Amino acid sequence: MSFKVVARDRLKPECREEALKLIAELIAKTRQEPGNISYVYCKDTKDPDYYAMIEEWKDQEALEAHMQSEHFNYYIPKLSQMMAEPSRLEVYEELVK
Amino acid sequence: MSFKVVARDRLKPECREEALKLIAELIAKTRQEPGNISYVYCKDTKDPDYYAMIEEWKDQEALEAHMQSEHFNYYIPKLSQMMAEPSRLEVYEELVK
Repeated sequence: MSFKVVARDRLKPECREEALKLIAELIAKTRQEPGNISYVYCKDTKDPDYYAMIEEWKDQEALEAHMQSEHFNYYIPKLSQMMAEPSRLEVYEELVK
Repeated sequence: MSFKVVARDRLKPECREEALKLIAELIAKTRQEPGNISYVYCKDTKDPDYYAMIEEWKDQEALEAHMQSEHFNYYIPKLSQMMAEPSRLEVYEELVK
């Protein structure tokens, strides 16, 4: 059973353009990881200040390897400074596939 | 660009077994909808009381058709009574695929 992650962000409006550029780079690198199944950046349809990275990983080890990767540790601290509040991170394990 | 839904639930512990049976039936029917890409029930890895249906739909029309379907309107009211608090529904549009 795979793992799914919902990382919900509130981007500072003045940082939106630069953040989306960095996020596109992070996505390209993350999709090269062998344990990544899906990694998509989304916009909340009801609240325009909120975004979310919705992720799927082969297993817990794949998710842990991602969080230790060079690109994660390069981009996430930069992106954190562009958020209006701390990200909300939820990690789920598939129960009924 | 597809739509993703995160519907987070807190199941009443005494209803867990029955709810999971109904959810498995709802999943089987939902996956037959032509606009459904993915519909997976998950368990929060940090908080054992919480679950989430994590969904992907071809477009907004597909999601609207789902919410008007016979199975949605049969199962969701039944399941709502098995929740310890109202579900938290977030709808996202893919921004960077």
